[in-house]
Amino acid sequence: MAVIGTIAATRNALMSGKTSSVELVSEALAEIENDAGEGHAIFVRTFKNTAITQAAACDAMRKMGVPQGPLAGIPISVKDLFDVEGAPTTAGSAVLAEMAEPARRDAIVIERLRAAGAIFLGHTNMTEFAYSGLGLNPHFGTPLNVWDKEVGRVPGGSSSGAALSVANNMAVAAIGSDTGGSVRIPSAFNRLYGFKPTTGRQPMTGVFPLSSSLDTVGPLARSMNCCRIIDHVMAGAPVPEPNLRSMVGLRFGILETIALDGLDMEVAGAFVRALEALSKGGARLERIKIDALENFHEIARLGSLAGPEAYHLHRDLIAAKGDQMDPRVRIRIENGANISASDYIEMLTLQKEMIEKAHLETRNYDVILMPTVAMVPPELAPLEESDALYAEANVKVLRNTALVNVLGRPAATIPVGDADAAPVGLMIVGEKGADAMVLDIAESIDLCVNSVSS
Amino acid sequence: MAVIGTIAATRNALMSGKTSSVELVSEALAEIENDAGEGHAIFVRTFKNTAITQAAACDAMRKMGVPQGPLAGIPISVKDLFDVEGAPTTAGSAVLAEMAEPARRDAIVIERLRAAGAIFLGHTNMTEFAYSGLGLNPHFGTPLNVWDKEVGRVPGGSSSGAALSVANNMAVAAIGSDTGGSVRIPSAFNRLYGFKPTTGRQPMTGVFPLSSSLDTVGPLARSMNCCRIIDHVMAGAPVPEPNLRSMVGLRFGILETIALDGLDMEVAGAFVRALEALSKGGARLERIKIDALENFHEIARLGSLAGPEAYHLHRDLIAAKGDQMDPRVRIRIENGANISASDYIEMLTLQKEMIEKAHLETRNYDVILMPTVAMVPPELAPLEESDALYAEANVKVLRNTALVNVLGRPAATIPVGDADAAPVGLMIVGEKGADAMVLDIAESIDLCVNSVSS
Repeated sequence: MAVIGTIAATRNALMSGKTSSVELVSEALAEIENDAGEGHAIFVRTFKNTAITQAAACDAMRKMGVPQGPLAGIPISVKDLFDVEGAPTTAGSAVLAEMAEPARRDAIVIERLRAAGAIFLGHTNMTEFAYSGLGLNPHFGTPLNVWDKEVGRVPGGSSSGAALSVANNMAVAAIGSDTGGSVRIPSAFNRLYGFKPTTGRQPMTGVFPLSSSLDTVGPLARSMNCCRIIDHVMAGAPVPEPNLRSMVGLRFGILETIALDGLDMEVAGAFVRALEALSKGGARLERIKIDALENFHEIARLGSLAGPEAYHLHRDLIAAKGDQMDPRVRIRIENGANISASDYIEMLTLQKEMIEKAHLETRNYDVILMPTVAMVPPELAPLEESDALYAEANVKVLRNTALVNVLGRPAATIPVGDADAAPVGLMIVGEKGADAMVLDIAESIDLCVNSVSS
Repeated sequence: MAVIGTIAATRNALMSGKTSSVELVSEALAEIENDAGEGHAIFVRTFKNTAITQAAACDAMRKMGVPQGPLAGIPISVKDLFDVEGAPTTAGSAVLAEMAEPARRDAIVIERLRAAGAIFLGHTNMTEFAYSGLGLNPHFGTPLNVWDKEVGRVPGGSSSGAALSVANNMAVAAIGSDTGGSVRIPSAFNRLYGFKPTTGRQPMTGVFPLSSSLDTVGPLARSMNCCRIIDHVMAGAPVPEPNLRSMVGLRFGILETIALDGLDMEVAGAFVRALEALSKGGARLERIKIDALENFHEIARLGSLAGPEAYHLHRDLIAAKGDQMDPRVRIRIENGANISASDYIEMLTLQKEMIEKAHLETRNYDVILMPTVAMVPPELAPLEESDALYAEANVKVLRNTALVNVLGRPAATIPVGDADAAPVGLMIVGEKGADAMVLDIAESIDLCVNSVSS
């Protein structure tokens, strides 16, 4: 089998001639198409012909010594809400699968990844319209979490197929979107690395929207270094070398407000052990409360920002074909119809105020730490059966990550805890705009906690 | 009586020793306080003591040759929605007059004007919360238009006192705000010059808001050069010399869509004669339709952007003290309560689309021309009596100017037609960000049409 490791490992294998891009892409596609596997629930479509052609061209150029970009020949999966020229974009929706025309051009971030040499394997499955953190999809199937397969647990969402394409060795890395946690939750649930940038860092042209105030796009991958490379390429920025730091002298705020309420025991245990390792490494840890997060409750009391924004986007489709949508997604969107313009403006005002005040409360910390998700991946079957259990689990799974979207801040998640135990993520949150610093510190924390290098 | 002319004329009189700032300010205040005049309905409060003190300091510095700013010693009036340190800001509202505390610091634009040497005479009267284009105020009185006093006509609003402070020689220039036409309508109705900048050009900190999407601030004055000076000072930019142009080679679009519907005869006549003068001067005039303005009708069908934004701002005050507000203003604000978040987002989307598309339709013209207001100033008494007549006149008076606010563009108004006839304004509209060019072309047009120099 071909090497499917980190971007750096794959590049080395390509450069040293141990493998070729055609080999990598062919084996990935074979794995996706293997009927015994879950490829059918992880990908909604592949771009087989174009992928092989691009891989061959890339191999030819490498052999001739033609300079290539930082992702040259690397097979990557793309969530089904990024426009890829020639393919329809269907956002995990059966209705859109019927109606969507092939995209006439790449989304801007896809165009940039392509220019950097990335090979796109296909569109990955997701929660319909990206509107849930659990990852269920009644239209195209729900791929199982890689942990505890005999029990059968949720993949995390909404970028469910994205995470599992990487976790099941079908891609080196995946491109997802994150409006309330959709990159970080499935990353944490499948022991991957994920990164959500500062809101506005990446151009959103050609990305199927959910919430204009909260949408971001980011990578799910096997290391923070992979995340750094993909994030910078998507932002149209040069990829910097990692600036790894000693923990000595770093000051971390451990968020108490909201983030530590009602943690699953496994999450609390892995989180505490990670903090112990950081402390032992020399970092200064301080428990902090952020009073500004009170506004988060006020926003929740009024509804949500995503609700009316999603309703505005989808109301015509709901009116025409609502009966063909996942009813659990539809009801969340429909709730957005009942929010008044003045309450929406109030939520935007509360958000702005919260962003400004929280900055004053946290600016003296290098980063803020919290568990990415308060719970371990719940069992799938009971959630498929009960709407009430689904709704309750969805609120809890999104809680910590969504907080960061409302703050508009960059955040990384890295796996912590034993490799064979329940998957737990540690979230590293920075100030707005401090994306490169969050990537560096997350990678440095990973090195300290997990004793791994990229 | 002291010289109260343009800023340039006043500066010359000050520099040559023909008058002093103390004299100018004292005579302006005497005129304001003259019981036989309308000062009581034009100003809601004066800043007498600080104004005289500043004027004396300015005179002393001028005598000693200390360098001073472009507005040194010039008496200016300020609409009652700009924070002026030490005075309450009451936005023409009886409720706020009861409750408001003195401002703790100047609005940023006021601070900049003050730094440039402006002397603030007082706060001018306005439509309550700036939410009407006619200028009626049942709490503090409605100052009469300077034209046709025996009939008694509306001043235009919402910056009613601002316009009349200049038209009645109580100030060299006035600072107003413009959300749907509140600078341009009273300017046009009283044969003054007015300027509304590109949305976002001026900092709005310390300006009592009406509509976050549409609010702008601008000058009402006796020449376009006065407007240029004040606009640049408020924007924190150096004041450029006028760049006057020949009409030869300029290409003007005469907007047919919406703007020419149902013009009063006097307006149509003065507008056409102005265009004839421009054509004779060598300008190329082309009638144009802007298809993107269709979105303006769609926005109107859904409500208005200002409605929900104003309701969000004022809903607590309405709940507590709505009975003490002008019922005609209150009802307009209350209508904003019924707009849903998704319709509001749709209006913002339509606005964005309209801005982008209209640019493609007009970018080849130097500026777009239309009548500032479709009607001449209506008689006051019937509007005071009939809510229906008031509502109808308000829609018509705002129509052309509001279009430009939704487009976010800069626009100037200059008086056209005979000095003793009904007042008519010619509106000169540029592309977003082309503020300096609009000021230059408006001044050049003024020179051609009215054969006046600044």
